[in-house]
Amino acid sequence: MNFTVVNIKKIYYNKNYVINFERSFKMANDKKMVAAITDMEKDFPQWYTDVVKKADLADYSSVKGCMIIRPYGYAIWELIQKQLDQIFKDTGHENVYMPMFIPESLLQKEKDHIEGFAPEVAWVTQGGLNKLQERLVVRPTSETLFCDHYKNIIHSYRDLPKLYNQWCSVVRWEKTTRPFLRTTEFLWQEGHTAHATAKESADETIKMLNVYADFAENVLAMPVIKGEKTAKERFAGAKNTYTIESLMHDGKALQSGTSHNFDDIFAKAFGIQYTDKDNKLQYVHQTSWGVTTRLIGAIIMVHGDNSGLVLPPKIAPVQTIIVPIAMQKDGVVEKAKEIEERLKKAGIRVKSDLSDKSAGWKFSEYEMKGVPVRLEIGPKDIEKNQCVLSRRDTGEKISVSLDTFEDDLKKLLDDIQNNLFEKAKQNRDSKTYTAKNMEEFEKIINKTPGFIKAMWCGDQACEDKIKELTAATSRCIPFEQEEISDTCVCCGKKAKYMVIWGRAY
Amino acid sequence: MNFTVVNIKKIYYNKNYVINFERSFKMANDKKMVAAITDMEKDFPQWYTDVVKKADLADYSSVKGCMIIRPYGYAIWELIQKQLDQIFKDTGHENVYMPMFIPESLLQKEKDHIEGFAPEVAWVTQGGLNKLQERLVVRPTSETLFCDHYKNIIHSYRDLPKLYNQWCSVVRWEKTTRPFLRTTEFLWQEGHTAHATAKESADETIKMLNVYADFAENVLAMPVIKGEKTAKERFAGAKNTYTIESLMHDGKALQSGTSHNFDDIFAKAFGIQYTDKDNKLQYVHQTSWGVTTRLIGAIIMVHGDNSGLVLPPKIAPVQTIIVPIAMQKDGVVEKAKEIEERLKKAGIRVKSDLSDKSAGWKFSEYEMKGVPVRLEIGPKDIEKNQCVLSRRDTGEKISVSLDTFEDDLKKLLDDIQNNLFEKAKQNRDSKTYTAKNMEEFEKIINKTPGFIKAMWCGDQACEDKIKELTAATSRCIPFEQEEISDTCVCCGKKAKYMVIWGRAY
Repeated sequence: MNFTVVNIKKIYYNKNYVINFERSFKMANDKKMVAAITDMEKDFPQWYTDVVKKADLADYSSVKGCMIIRPYGYAIWELIQKQLDQIFKDTGHENVYMPMFIPESLLQKEKDHIEGFAPEVAWVTQGGLNKLQERLVVRPTSETLFCDHYKNIIHSYRDLPKLYNQWCSVVRWEKTTRPFLRTTEFLWQEGHTAHATAKESADETIKMLNVYADFAENVLAMPVIKGEKTAKERFAGAKNTYTIESLMHDGKALQSGTSHNFDDIFAKAFGIQYTDKDNKLQYVHQTSWGVTTRLIGAIIMVHGDNSGLVLPPKIAPVQTIIVPIAMQKDGVVEKAKEIEERLKKAGIRVKSDLSDKSAGWKFSEYEMKGVPVRLEIGPKDIEKNQCVLSRRDTGEKISVSLDTFEDDLKKLLDDIQNNLFEKAKQNRDSKTYTAKNMEEFEKIINKTPGFIKAMWCGDQACEDKIKELTAATSRCIPFEQEEISDTCVCCGKKAKYMVIWGRAY
Repeated sequence: MNFTVVNIKKIYYNKNYVINFERSFKMANDKKMVAAITDMEKDFPQWYTDVVKKADLADYSSVKGCMIIRPYGYAIWELIQKQLDQIFKDTGHENVYMPMFIPESLLQKEKDHIEGFAPEVAWVTQGGLNKLQERLVVRPTSETLFCDHYKNIIHSYRDLPKLYNQWCSVVRWEKTTRPFLRTTEFLWQEGHTAHATAKESADETIKMLNVYADFAENVLAMPVIKGEKTAKERFAGAKNTYTIESLMHDGKALQSGTSHNFDDIFAKAFGIQYTDKDNKLQYVHQTSWGVTTRLIGAIIMVHGDNSGLVLPPKIAPVQTIIVPIAMQKDGVVEKAKEIEERLKKAGIRVKSDLSDKSAGWKFSEYEMKGVPVRLEIGPKDIEKNQCVLSRRDTGEKISVSLDTFEDDLKKLLDDIQNNLFEKAKQNRDSKTYTAKNMEEFEKIINKTPGFIKAMWCGDQACEDKIKELTAATSRCIPFEQEEISDTCVCCGKKAKYMVIWGRAY
């Protein structure tokens, strides 16, 4: 345990704290009443669905492939939004709102873009009682709308850069869907920027990738690998696509955020030009970058366990749940309320559950919901001027003095945040392998899925063959290159890059 | 002038402050360079469009009837969102996210509802490369989706009330559109609640109407009349619809927020039942309520003037703009930056314009954008340890000591907020008339449009006739009733209610 504060005394249920005997016993009984979730080691997809449902994160809707994000799930998204939005603003970006529809002719202006998106969009063909003259697409992404707008508002070098972002929902007609990970409609933010030079757009692309990586690691406690996508996996119409890739508990990869450099590709297709300082016409250079509600799926699959969700404190709608013990006893409810007020004042997101449900039921419920710390307060605690803090991540309990418990709790939350990151990193590192030939590659991926580092010649034929043989795709060409060998894992020719491969969501 | 603080000395340009001579002169010249907007008294609709464009609030898009909300306009919406959202949360509401699509069969479940909305919705008929088996509607409002969800998650009285809200965009296929006031797609919030009893849903409906009214008056500085809509103007499927009605500068009315009581109408259509404490099945009772980006249109038309937008400080993205005078002089830019930092620390939304544009150009630009206070700082000001504060609402200028200017500015912002409300109220009251018969009614509405208070028998035939004769509609039956006469203004039969009538946006 990393947590070491002088005035905190660890306690153990079956040793020196009598009341905990009774608590443990009752809790064990009550826990049986709370329907169990599937064992994650036995059936990870079913475990995932159970957690989504039982932690009240999302529900199915009557619209195929669309989910209902319930209050608890939406509160996590609001915390993601709030923190990312502040970073975007601090780095000079402004929010805007574009229409949700794109006329077919506008979507067609950049040829790779329309080819990439046409098979997966929803078409509006009728408005009110009339058939539309031109079909509209429900936006799958908004490059074309931003380009159309930029063409109208960018004239001079003085108008640059434009650093825009929008929070909205987009639609992609997916065949198989799973809550948060892949849904027909999902929530996201999409940054769209326009710059004077190729260097500026290249720099912005990397800058925002770093914003995502820092956010994933520091806020979501999720280690990521930064790198560039291969041409095959590139965004439709981009010059370069960069990505942060993370590894889930089951060893499958998740693309968690992407940043695209368009250079002047869209500017040429849309005719977005400005007059430079020498009065010459120049094309702008653009980027786009986005993260989605998929991040909630990542949080579930990186940190969750067999008791349910485990939330990093920075993203937890409730950081501490107060559960009063022996509520009927004099002064317990009052003390719980007093503690709640004190924690609110200390800036902690706290709730107390004063319902008539049993303490054991409450223990299970908030474990399922991944609340980082449970604070127990009962008559014996009050007598001793203390409360018990129970960590969701390790299950450890400590008793702390009511004189100093705000500070103790803050330190505990920091410690949980750090511990979750370290645990996730250990899991990822322990599931990261190297392969020098396809025999090794196939053996690893079929036995213990994870990230596989292997060399690649740069030829798409090898990429296709690896996918065909192993169902693994190239996740990225990491910025941090290593030389596993000097020949391509697939064809044996001279290698150009080390690539991270994996089966992905 | 309401503003009276002891240590503040009014100054006048052409009297005791030499540098201001030059400033005024230069400003007058520069102002000519800034393209003028249409005179609001001559052509109010064109004035409105000019302000929307020139204050950079919104732009037209290539999608018919859809607007682009630009950063400055969106920042106003974010301030509306942030403040309303906090009130919703403080009153126990939780945010959720529902799908943007509604299957046709679901929309049809409540017959009045589908009749009301069918003529004005957008239809998705194709997903990816395939024609859909069932058409989907892009949500015009989400009652049916919430009902479908409530049916699944409400079982017992313990599950009630459900107090949900969502922030999203909706689509209504409008024939004639105008930015913010009526657009095919618009942003809004929609509250949807479910309660055990008829009294609870009735109370919630009024409670949220009051939230809207307080917000409109205290934050948007816009006086409103609270009342009930007549049956003709009721929301499709509601038992009662309540509204806040405001009056624009040109004497036209704007419905600014509505709150609907559904009683058990939707619950019966959707079969949403719960088991009460006596183990009996009961229908839930529901409400919905919403405000939209239309509020931005209201702000423009209630407070704006011939120099452009005028923003109430509580909703202004920039509350104070710092314009340095004689920027090239030693120490001016540094002092401007120092002032900006001090004001940021004091919690004021402040920006400084250090661009090489002329001071006169800047004066016009930020007047157009409705920034409540301009802070001027030049060499003479620095010498005297003061700065000049110029009010957007009255044009008055005061010089304040740099020792105390944070407090002075805060008081000034409060005063501007109050003054804007009072001015708007005076405008509304001066354009509120009474009519006892149709002759009076027509004379008023054709000469000096505004709110007309007149008695009504309760018969829709009279409501229809009044609209036919005058183009005025019943805005609401105000909660605060007066007895203008005892007979209906139209048919002369016994009157039931006093109604507020007006031509409306």
